[in-house]
Amino acid sequence: MQAWKDYQAENKDRFLSELLDLLRIPSISAKSENKADMQKCAEAVQARLLEAGADKVEIYTTDGHPLVYGEKIIDATKPTVLVYGHYDVQPADPLDLWNSGPFDPLIKDGKIFARGSCDDKGQFYMHVKALETMVKTNTLTTNIKFCIEGEEEVGSPNLGKFVASHKDLLKADVILISDTAMISLDTPSIDIGVRGLSYIEVEVTGPNRDLHSGVYGGAVANPITILAKMIASLHDENNHITIPGFYDDVAVSTDAERKLMAQAPFDEQEYKDDLGVKELWGEKGFSTNERTGIRPTLELNGIWGGYTGEGAKTVLPSKAFAKISARLVPNQGSDKITDILINHLKKIAPPYVTVKASLHHGGEPYMTPIDSKAYQAAAKAMETTFGKAPIPVRGGGSIPICALFEKELGIKIVFMGFGLDSDNLHSPNEKFNLDNFYKGIETIPYFHKCFAEMS
Amino acid sequence: MQAWKDYQAENKDRFLSELLDLLRIPSISAKSENKADMQKCAEAVQARLLEAGADKVEIYTTDGHPLVYGEKIIDATKPTVLVYGHYDVQPADPLDLWNSGPFDPLIKDGKIFARGSCDDKGQFYMHVKALETMVKTNTLTTNIKFCIEGEEEVGSPNLGKFVASHKDLLKADVILISDTAMISLDTPSIDIGVRGLSYIEVEVTGPNRDLHSGVYGGAVANPITILAKMIASLHDENNHITIPGFYDDVAVSTDAERKLMAQAPFDEQEYKDDLGVKELWGEKGFSTNERTGIRPTLELNGIWGGYTGEGAKTVLPSKAFAKISARLVPNQGSDKITDILINHLKKIAPPYVTVKASLHHGGEPYMTPIDSKAYQAAAKAMETTFGKAPIPVRGGGSIPICALFEKELGIKIVFMGFGLDSDNLHSPNEKFNLDNFYKGIETIPYFHKCFAEMS
Repeated sequence: MQAWKDYQAENKDRFLSELLDLLRIPSISAKSENKADMQKCAEAVQARLLEAGADKVEIYTTDGHPLVYGEKIIDATKPTVLVYGHYDVQPADPLDLWNSGPFDPLIKDGKIFARGSCDDKGQFYMHVKALETMVKTNTLTTNIKFCIEGEEEVGSPNLGKFVASHKDLLKADVILISDTAMISLDTPSIDIGVRGLSYIEVEVTGPNRDLHSGVYGGAVANPITILAKMIASLHDENNHITIPGFYDDVAVSTDAERKLMAQAPFDEQEYKDDLGVKELWGEKGFSTNERTGIRPTLELNGIWGGYTGEGAKTVLPSKAFAKISARLVPNQGSDKITDILINHLKKIAPPYVTVKASLHHGGEPYMTPIDSKAYQAAAKAMETTFGKAPIPVRGGGSIPICALFEKELGIKIVFMGFGLDSDNLHSPNEKFNLDNFYKGIETIPYFHKCFAEMS
Repeated sequence: MQAWKDYQAENKDRFLSELLDLLRIPSISAKSENKADMQKCAEAVQARLLEAGADKVEIYTTDGHPLVYGEKIIDATKPTVLVYGHYDVQPADPLDLWNSGPFDPLIKDGKIFARGSCDDKGQFYMHVKALETMVKTNTLTTNIKFCIEGEEEVGSPNLGKFVASHKDLLKADVILISDTAMISLDTPSIDIGVRGLSYIEVEVTGPNRDLHSGVYGGAVANPITILAKMIASLHDENNHITIPGFYDDVAVSTDAERKLMAQAPFDEQEYKDDLGVKELWGEKGFSTNERTGIRPTLELNGIWGGYTGEGAKTVLPSKAFAKISARLVPNQGSDKITDILINHLKKIAPPYVTVKASLHHGGEPYMTPIDSKAYQAAAKAMETTFGKAPIPVRGGGSIPICALFEKELGIKIVFMGFGLDSDNLHSPNEKFNLDNFYKGIETIPYFHKCFAEMS
């Protein structure tokens, strides 16, 4: 399609500059102080969708942050693609580890450095620019709907209600999501699964107030020490999770599946060098890609307690806290694992302390069948623009709303992610390669074309 | 001494109001932002000493915070008492747990609530007011020197140099310190020992940057998990410290000493109720008072890593940190234990991470013989004002400069503390009972009188 190529080449710089404007809005959904920025960002998304050629774009208020719905309906008899994405971003801290402002996007070495550049503003914006390309070149062959929410990074607490009460509005033949990674531009891949999530917070209370560690040290339990012992007990010497029942529902991959996974290119030394570690870590008996793909995991996302400031303070604190999350695989259920986690932590709490544990958010694991029309259309689109067929892989991240979409709308999801694992998602110096951004905009119209032809 | 009683009764309210002014200065030695407050506080101490009747008061600059030296010399042939105290205080955080401003002193229920009220502004100020009492009633029988430093809460890094280079200035027959607690006004006691200290900070680094916990979880070691496992391994199932060599130099108390200690009144249920815990914790085989008095301990003073803000962030952090301190007993050496701690932590670090550990500060344990003239004078003074002889006890806290004073000046120290263990030292809502403050001012002149009579 030379018309697409020409249009995109002519408008390349504008596409980027529009994305940078979007990245300048600190739309951090987890922080109440950014509430106004969330509204501002939703309005910006609305404006960009309208400019790109959407017929109708509405901002829906929710009990949390607003959701943007937009559509371009060309013909009710044509297939409909629902694009899901999110305009909210993770908090940017620790700020001192950023080399440039997280909301002051910097283009350097062919990369866009900014919070949200890849996750997910840069990725959902490829779809906005793909829509524009097809509209402006009069080549649209599908109806396109956009559902861009503002609460993905806090577990989409209000999306379920919206989807359940807007089933007709969201009616589509496939859901297309770009919020995952591919192996590389040389080795395109498509995620066929995302892991589920169970994210909890634990509070361990020892004495009823902070104490002098000299006067009381040795007499009363230190909640940091106890929390450390509790955390330490969650993995055994093989880094297998010790929580009774945790693995009960895990779908065991067949040898054939594992053999297929092992064919994806992976250079362990390069991986270690990139991360700056001498040795990798994880559950014994599984390869690195298996550990992040087909196995559930338990990670400490945060810990704090006592004096954490400059210098020394000889305190025996009253409380210690941790944020802990499990990544889940089929057929684990998020609610069940959350119960198991919370009950286990309470159960192993020794009598010296009291333990409170509560859910932050969760989400179910999700798998896309590779024989589905949607997957095949995505694979064909990528083969067209990359010159080689993508490899199906299992992603380690979570998109909690997938299971919900399938349940409520009864349609399949395809993950066409153009990020890279090394894009520092959720970390300082998040980036998105310009080549990946433009490759996404180039590839997405082919998905619509292929999907329309197959339907 | 009716004259003392009368003078103190007349000036009671002014004594308190002067202390409150001192407590309003946020003289936090650990925080660089309070540097100006430290100078201001030193100047206030200087002014108060001059007003109380000292002949000469100088502020000595050091490489850190200033030190205040003052003296009232009446007769070179009389015995000289050197009063040591500190005008610096611990940081006040966590601020949200204070019921009133830490530097906005509140008198409530007969208690002064403020950072430093007991540790040590309220306590060293009793000596200033005792000096005033004796000067104004023409009853001084000793020479008195004051050494009030500004770095006790950060380990007195510059006091050693000052003492070594001002031996003549500090020459005295005894050092008197009120920076410890007594059992209660009904059960007076004198600390005959303070524990030593070795305070270190540990940094555990996993990957070279914060990672997405979904993409990398299960593949690479999480430094929080590793740090928790390291901390958990430091105490065994009997809460005995597992670090090889840690107990090697511990002076074992005799059965007779332990029997004597067991005679101090102690109500375990009351102690637990005060702390709000169901069970106490500590090294098996030792009573609560033994665990805080004659045994060394290892406490976590702080821990942090990953995301600790509001909401959820699915990060696998690059680094995790802990502040860890050991309390030491005779004959453990602070430098030796620091080396043992740091080397042990580096040794048990698994190959997935790198561990850095460094000293914040340390101090040697110290014991006062109860047959010394100084102890006897303190015991007699307390018996005079309390109506019963004080019980000798071993305190759990640390005054790192004691061993240094004895080594450099060759004189004994006596700890005449008027605080209570429940004064929330180093914690939110630090307080000092008014009764204890006034009892201290009443008792201290008797110490000088008794010491002069014995000399």
